[in-house]
Amino acid sequence: MWGSTCVAVTGFCRYIALCLCLAGLSAGAVGNDRFAECRGRWIEKAEAAKPRLFSRTVSPVRLVDVAADPSAFQGWGIKEGKPLKSAFSRPLEDGDAFVLDFGEHLVGYLSIQLVDFGRAADAPVRLQFDFAEMPIELAEDAANTKPSVSTAWYQREIVTFDDIPSTSRLPRRYAFRYVRVRVIGCSPYASFGIGGVSAQAVTSADESRLLAWDAPSEDAAILDRIARRTLRDCMQTFLEDGPKRDRRLWLGDLRLEALANYETYRNFDVVKRSLYLLAGTCGDNGELYSDAFERPVPRSGACRILDYTALFAATLLEYAEASGDIETANDLWPLCVAQLGDILDTVGGDGVFRDNGKWWCFIDWIDELDRQTAEQGAIIYGLKATLRLAEKLGRKSDVASVPAMVERMERAARTVLWDERRGLFLCEKGRQASYLGQAWLVLAGVLDEKSAKRCLKSVMADDEAVRPVTPYANHYFVEALYAAGMRDEAERRMMSYWGAMATMGADTFWEVFVPKDHRAGPYQTPLMNSYCHAWSCAPAYFLRNVKFSKPSERKDSQ
Amino acid sequence: MWGSTCVAVTGFCRYIALCLCLAGLSAGAVGNDRFAECRGRWIEKAEAAKPRLFSRTVSPVRLVDVAADPSAFQGWGIKEGKPLKSAFSRPLEDGDAFVLDFGEHLVGYLSIQLVDFGRAADAPVRLQFDFAEMPIELAEDAANTKPSVSTAWYQREIVTFDDIPSTSRLPRRYAFRYVRVRVIGCSPYASFGIGGVSAQAVTSADESRLLAWDAPSEDAAILDRIARRTLRDCMQTFLEDGPKRDRRLWLGDLRLEALANYETYRNFDVVKRSLYLLAGTCGDNGELYSDAFERPVPRSGACRILDYTALFAATLLEYAEASGDIETANDLWPLCVAQLGDILDTVGGDGVFRDNGKWWCFIDWIDELDRQTAEQGAIIYGLKATLRLAEKLGRKSDVASVPAMVERMERAARTVLWDERRGLFLCEKGRQASYLGQAWLVLAGVLDEKSAKRCLKSVMADDEAVRPVTPYANHYFVEALYAAGMRDEAERRMMSYWGAMATMGADTFWEVFVPKDHRAGPYQTPLMNSYCHAWSCAPAYFLRNVKFSKPSERKDSQ
Repeated sequence: MWGSTCVAVTGFCRYIALCLCLAGLSAGAVGNDRFAECRGRWIEKAEAAKPRLFSRTVSPVRLVDVAADPSAFQGWGIKEGKPLKSAFSRPLEDGDAFVLDFGEHLVGYLSIQLVDFGRAADAPVRLQFDFAEMPIELAEDAANTKPSVSTAWYQREIVTFDDIPSTSRLPRRYAFRYVRVRVIGCSPYASFGIGGVSAQAVTSADESRLLAWDAPSEDAAILDRIARRTLRDCMQTFLEDGPKRDRRLWLGDLRLEALANYETYRNFDVVKRSLYLLAGTCGDNGELYSDAFERPVPRSGACRILDYTALFAATLLEYAEASGDIETANDLWPLCVAQLGDILDTVGGDGVFRDNGKWWCFIDWIDELDRQTAEQGAIIYGLKATLRLAEKLGRKSDVASVPAMVERMERAARTVLWDERRGLFLCEKGRQASYLGQAWLVLAGVLDEKSAKRCLKSVMADDEAVRPVTPYANHYFVEALYAAGMRDEAERRMMSYWGAMATMGADTFWEVFVPKDHRAGPYQTPLMNSYCHAWSCAPAYFLRNVKFSKPSERKDSQ
Repeated sequence: MWGSTCVAVTGFCRYIALCLCLAGLSAGAVGNDRFAECRGRWIEKAEAAKPRLFSRTVSPVRLVDVAADPSAFQGWGIKEGKPLKSAFSRPLEDGDAFVLDFGEHLVGYLSIQLVDFGRAADAPVRLQFDFAEMPIELAEDAANTKPSVSTAWYQREIVTFDDIPSTSRLPRRYAFRYVRVRVIGCSPYASFGIGGVSAQAVTSADESRLLAWDAPSEDAAILDRIARRTLRDCMQTFLEDGPKRDRRLWLGDLRLEALANYETYRNFDVVKRSLYLLAGTCGDNGELYSDAFERPVPRSGACRILDYTALFAATLLEYAEASGDIETANDLWPLCVAQLGDILDTVGGDGVFRDNGKWWCFIDWIDELDRQTAEQGAIIYGLKATLRLAEKLGRKSDVASVPAMVERMERAARTVLWDERRGLFLCEKGRQASYLGQAWLVLAGVLDEKSAKRCLKSVMADDEAVRPVTPYANHYFVEALYAAGMRDEAERRMMSYWGAMATMGADTFWEVFVPKDHRAGPYQTPLMNSYCHAWSCAPAYFLRNVKFSKPSERKDSQ
């Protein structure tokens, strides 16, 4: 398609991209509004690739009570409540409340049927609905929190029903397993009841297309099931990070979600659409934002995350390889090239990454992490993916200067950042060692397998090393273990980290999980954490992908 | 129409009605389900008469602040706030709030436009809307009240907006002049604003059909305007009592609303529909309920108010006279007859009304009122209207026993209830004198004009007499003054009572108004009172109806 419907524009795009890379110009210097023209076409492609949503009706399976339980995750456990039928078709009064359990996490809409008991309701009924992914969301009062993001994320809905009897669908989409329904206004003169409540769960994951897979163990089957549920509930009309919060397309999350999707539901459209949403909301000079919104109209977020941007080419390459859709890879190739200028602006003449203040360096949700080594690795990783994609598309000349940059950065990693005595990559200031610094430089292929093993073992033995806190970061540490040939350690770590969530009752895998701190999270309150987060669906990827799971293909030599 | 589409049914209805009256049988004894057949036809007629709603867009005129003001009604005054434009198109933060003043009371829907400022909103926005007819509803916290009716009447709406920019209409219909908008959840990272707010006001009152009228004074013009606004906002697809609360059809309210309507907008369909809604939701033996609901399907309320039911024939007669629609009067005539049995069950062999516990005796919202004298008057009044309607329809034989009953009750009033020494009607137990007891017996025509004057003057001179508290009850006292030929006193009283509301800033006339107790009301909190209540639109009726306003036709001889 590239060059067919829009020859002049795409030709110019390619030209700009080339300029940006080869001439090392700042992206802001040339060609304003040329990518603007591409954007319109890319958004059209995003719309054309919009996947259909599969919907199913889910009924609550039981009533539960949330109770303090020191042995439970976050100290809040779920107990069997009264019989389910006790909630329905009986007169309810002001203050009555119950918690419905839908049996598993789901994303969708809630319908409620209100009934009367012979006498017409003489006043509206007001109900409060609290949707919860986790017991803590029902147990602790959100009013006592001061989160760093909008409290409008809290899934509380107060609805006033004028018509009784009636069946109504609540106004928003919710992500939940539990729903507390509380009567907060009704007539003392005419009783009403709830005839029934049901959910319409939606996803673009088609269970009928799920790839067959023989789980090697019951534990593996459990982790895969939870990971797939996580993936399923984040797979909507685009790849959301979390259906409770942020409900947004994030490039870094998209990559891991896409990788798990290729091993399971293989819905390529939802990946294609997500890639085109990011592409269609790029800046005038092709600079990618790391986040995009689908509604009310496609639009970029405000974030540019260096390590996410570095992974764009890898994400596009993996998509092309999984789907065979070379046309999309060709179409979006100019964006891979367009990122290089800004990314490489962070790399000094000595080949070392140093934060220039123009990017958000993410890597993981942890303040004390010095990201230098990890970003160094992520950039090299991204550059190598860019070269592989260029080769696949026959575009090597577009990125002719990249191989030398890769070599310089690899050398710098092995000289400036490597501490031979400790067998670790250390950041320049403070000499910090981190799991993710090692992981990303191992994934970048900076070390031979023997040194990679040494460095990963060293960091795991170092109590001072900064550890990963999110499943996103743990994913890359596990992948680095696999990359270093430490298959057993990788699998053990994966089974242990994600398995701990499963043991604590996870329905879907969480945005943040720090085994020793159940209240950890970046938002000043665990109530705000997303408990179904796409970047956490690693088990489905690692367990099912032959690259990791087949011992015959990879010898573990630790 | 009677006897045309449904001969057998209507014929039978008439037969039952006749039986009920002439044989004096209890309504429960005969003909179950025969009125059920009539009901279906009556509901169809109610639907066919459903008036169209006129809609207009109303913009807020200013921002205001609600402030304590001992001189203001209920102690809460309205002060000019910041410039209106300060609310719009500027970034808003959590906790920001402002009060929009729409310039006058209205009933309808609110639309709000949310905007951003270049950066996409990265989280939902949650807004709280408090709709207020009166300042007190914004000044005092409803959470501190324990009203005797559903708190769901409080017009608070909390809406979570996922899409920004967007324009949304809030889910319900509201009755308000003021709206406080408060930001209770938004992102600290991406600012949003409100582009605009507008209301779509609805009514079945057609201003283009308003009867011309020369106000005799500026004060009269003011009261008429407020009364018409009250009427307008209660005139929806049926005659509501109050558009904030109860949003219900009440027979007693319907009557006064219809009377004012005949002098102003002359929308006969809305009266016809309301009559048919009551008729179509009657009991199996034709017993009328005093209240009915339009939605979700027409349905009776649970109340049977004796004094309201006694007025049904008067209401039907007045409708027929105003509209010329004799067909409807004929169609519903069996209901007039069907009420007689239950009504007259309250009257002893001596012709005196005594509460038999089977009815709600309303008359006014005041506990200490002994309703005996007032109900005696209301029943006689109703019987006389029934006889006039019978005469008009040629149905005198249906109510052949009624004249004797009227005579017996009038005689009983003048003997058992009349205290010649004091010149007052007194209740049997406790010898209570009340304004409404005198009013209803005067309206019933039990006394000659001279005695009527004496009795009304006596009660006004009696500090112990129970006074009316609602505009509904004040209406009938004023009307009694007119009926007794005390035109000046009637007008002075009307101008003073309703004028006091106007002076205190009433936009529409209130459900309850006790000059010495601004917090009076039947719901344990003045926040629950309706401040646009159809039974309060008396001025438009009294000022415009030639029966009251033309001195030439009535000599005031007090």
